Amino acid sequence: MKNSGGRQKSILLSKPLLFSCIRPYGKGVDVAAPDTSITRASELLDAYEDEYNGVIIDPQSLPDNANAFADVLQSSLVSWKLEGKKGVWLKILEQQAGLVPIALKQGFSYHHAEKGYVMLTYWIPDEPCVLPSTSTHQIGVGAFVMNENKEVLVVIEKKCPLRCSGMWKLPTGLINKSEEIFNGAIREVKEETGIETTFLEVVAFRHAHQVAFDKSDLFFVCMLKPLTLQINIDESEIEEAKWMALEEFLGLPFHRDDKLLRRITSICIAKYQNKYQGFTAQCMMSKFDDRLTYLYHGCL
Amino acid sequence: MKNSGGRQKSILLSKPLLFSCIRPYGKGVDVAAPDTSITRASELLDAYEDEYNGVIIDPQSLPDNANAFADVLQSSLVSWKLEGKKGVWLKILEQQAGLVPIALKQGFSYHHAEKGYVMLTYWIPDEPCVLPSTSTHQIGVGAFVMNENKEVLVVIEKKCPLRCSGMWKLPTGLINKSEEIFNGAIREVKEETGIETTFLEVVAFRHAHQVAFDKSDLFFVCMLKPLTLQINIDESEIEEAKWMALEEFLGLPFHRDDKLLRRITSICIAKYQNKYQGFTAQCMMSKFDDRLTYLYHGCL
Repeated sequence: MKNSGGRQKSILLSKPLLFSCIRPYGKGVDVAAPDTSITRASELLDAYEDEYNGVIIDPQSLPDNANAFADVLQSSLVSWKLEGKKGVWLKILEQQAGLVPIALKQGFSYHHAEKGYVMLTYWIPDEPCVLPSTSTHQIGVGAFVMNENKEVLVVIEKKCPLRCSGMWKLPTGLINKSEEIFNGAIREVKEETGIETTFLEVVAFRHAHQVAFDKSDLFFVCMLKPLTLQINIDESEIEEAKWMALEEFLGLPFHRDDKLLRRITSICIAKYQNKYQGFTAQCMMSKFDDRLTYLYHGCL
Repeated sequence: MKNSGGRQKSILLSKPLLFSCIRPYGKGVDVAAPDTSITRASELLDAYEDEYNGVIIDPQSLPDNANAFADVLQSSLVSWKLEGKKGVWLKILEQQAGLVPIALKQGFSYHHAEKGYVMLTYWIPDEPCVLPSTSTHQIGVGAFVMNENKEVLVVIEKKCPLRCSGMWKLPTGLINKSEEIFNGAIREVKEETGIETTFLEVVAFRHAHQVAFDKSDLFFVCMLKPLTLQINIDESEIEEAKWMALEEFLGLPFHRDDKLLRRITSICIAKYQNKYQGFTAQCMMSKFDDRLTYLYHGCL
């Protein structure tokens, strides 16, 4: 599909646009007179260009006044079209939410939103839009923690849906923003049970679709090694936690009846017996984006 | 962190709320008189409950009129608070974007947005919000495709950022909504080069943060086996594609200087020589959510 072609379509602020870009409104200035045309041909919204011949409008440059915004947005679009620009990115902060309907009316679409702002986009060319879509996945982690007595760390969640109410299960959770996968697993175990662990391997991952808000879900099963044994639960989230004999865990009805969970447990047991190899995490620098990131891979 | 505690916090419509819920406005009805109080104590927004004692407002039940919406939203929040409800989900379609500032004013926050709508949330209890965050990741794929002459399939992208302009690289891309990882890799190779392939293994994955819109990125390296050899490029995306001798690929300046890429290539070569084991994908049913999903794991 056209909107997923390029890999490096992240939106990066680069240099200010070289084309005419006169700032018509100071930061936070409210242009109060709605019936006065304040937009001249030379007045455009402040903007930066991205790496794809697109335009990123400076959210601080938006007038508070609706009519002024409608005028300057229209002029800016005309100008950018003449200059052959492609995608236009418009971030509108929460305090200026009244401008959103105006942008939508001029052909912008919602792209994504976060606490505090909404991002809208406009595709200028008369060809299919190739702007990247917003994020598509949430990332979950599950932790298999077994002690030297072959007991598995299990919990009963307080806030789980009815179908798993009162059920013993592995500690799980969603990773936080910008959190590493293995750190998320270690944190969830610590939060839910008080047990300290170290990361061994990602032994498997599951990919599910249409989970939350029609988005997808990647769930990484992490094998962790316990460093402590004393359980101390988070009472706001967890009903109960304990070390359960592996045989008892394998015999739980939910485990017995669930092929996916059985496969995951078999893998974890094989790993425990040194008969399986998952992926470890190695911190590496890439020249491509000058970032230190983790590469997860098997043993070479 | 509190907002990532539970694993199963997907929002599912369940049964209509059992508490009083009289529909005051028909679908699409515009309540035109802004100065008339049309909200009685018994008039609340249509809503459903979720599995976490939360409330999901029916987007079709929102009045178009701003004052009417402000009144009924306020009454509904009072009622839901009395009933001990927790999170409130409010989806506002694009055509009613004028209601967004009203909801924000009453304490709602942006949660996420997609083409056509914005989702807002409100946390009623006097305790930290535990509503799940929106999706946090985009998922990329890269394909290592080597033929029997030890030639690697490489491309030069047309729309890449300046820093990789004119550079030979592996075919890459973002997966589509609800697309399987290996299918995304097969599709990208087919789109960019015309080469048909089958999936062998996910040999590694990289986790990068603060990539697009401050979101994270998981990039899965897939080993694919070519089924055809005749290259036929997508001229809108690709400048050039060819089979490049492995030795030549290894000697490319960008490859030589990039530790991460060198590691990935070493893994792929080891896999080609049957000296490495990555993760294959197995389609399985889970009783937990009655879904057929793919579990990626090594050889047991």
